Amino acid sequence: MRTPPIIHATREADSARFLSVEQVDLEFSNGQRRTFERMKPHGHGAVIVVPMRDAGTVLLVREYGAGVGRYELGLPKGRLEHAETAEQGANRELKEEVGFGARRLTVLHKLALSPSYMAHMADVVLAQDLYPEKLPGDEPEELDIVPWRLDELHLLLGREDVTEGRSIAALFMAREYLAGRFVRA
Amino acid sequence: MRTPPIIHATREADSARFLSVEQVDLEFSNGQRRTFERMKPHGHGAVIVVPMRDAGTVLLVREYGAGVGRYELGLPKGRLEHAETAEQGANRELKEEVGFGARRLTVLHKLALSPSYMAHMADVVLAQDLYPEKLPGDEPEELDIVPWRLDELHLLLGREDVTEGRSIAALFMAREYLAGRFVRA
Repeated sequence: MRTPPIIHATREADSARFLSVEQVDLEFSNGQRRTFERMKPHGHGAVIVVPMRDAGTVLLVREYGAGVGRYELGLPKGRLEHAETAEQGANRELKEEVGFGARRLTVLHKLALSPSYMAHMADVVLAQDLYPEKLPGDEPEELDIVPWRLDELHLLLGREDVTEGRSIAALFMAREYLAGRFVRA
Repeated sequence: MRTPPIIHATREADSARFLSVEQVDLEFSNGQRRTFERMKPHGHGAVIVVPMRDAGTVLLVREYGAGVGRYELGLPKGRLEHAETAEQGANRELKEEVGFGARRLTVLHKLALSPSYMAHMADVVLAQDLYPEKLPGDEPEELDIVPWRLDELHLLLGREDVTEGRSIAALFMAREYLAGRFVRA
């Protein structure tokens, strides 16, 4: 196990730099009115990458999650840069975080963080036909790469370091797609 | 299809009421330092409920998501109230949103919203042995209830109104649990 980072300080921050919160006044079709709050992300979107080392094996990364304060095992992901497509962003994140490029990139679907109160969406991108290529990223440390068999996804569930809904959803989505049981919209 | 609500107004809101944003100064084991931002939720936690009408059928709800601005098909969920356990909160949400109570409630696992920058966690609660009981909730309209066969989860994937990572993850988690392939930690 990797030594977790030292937390030197924690302080309140100005949320306006990070995201904006909106109030929305709604009138439902039955006449009921509500004011809901929702968060709007800054930026150009995000991707979650499912990198296939071979037909039966996905590459996971172990990354420190500042939100939960521990290492989390999941899929590589990141925010899109200006004028980047989902496929381009996925390939860049893959090179930065995992050290591979992909010759074949397929957008499977979009996943929401929380439909009720967040506008954030991420594209799930399946990456196949990998080849070694490393790009320098902004990660503070090299990520551990953990190969995992697609037919053993059930062994990931229940692990204390596997908790991200979108990663788990994207893994099952990719498995169903590769088995021919999920057709893209 | 239900008529979506009318949006009367949208305005910037004070984020401090809704959530707080923290900055965290970290030093990784290789000496690299970073300042990350993370969101801390208010409140007492949250639950995602997997209500089983019978051994092979889950009850989904269609609810307007103010974050994404459309109806989303997914699992009932909500925030815990003061001094409520996950099981109690799940049963209350089930009665409010679906009109059933459950004689058997099992916490399967915790799911994170975004380990990188959010502290939010929700308990996945499997609800079995249902009986009709309706509690008044704060929902602005009755939710459509949509029964779905567990052996047809793949037909949910790729639908434009099924995008929530945590709902999809919780559904596959429940299916693996009920098939005996997932053992709770």
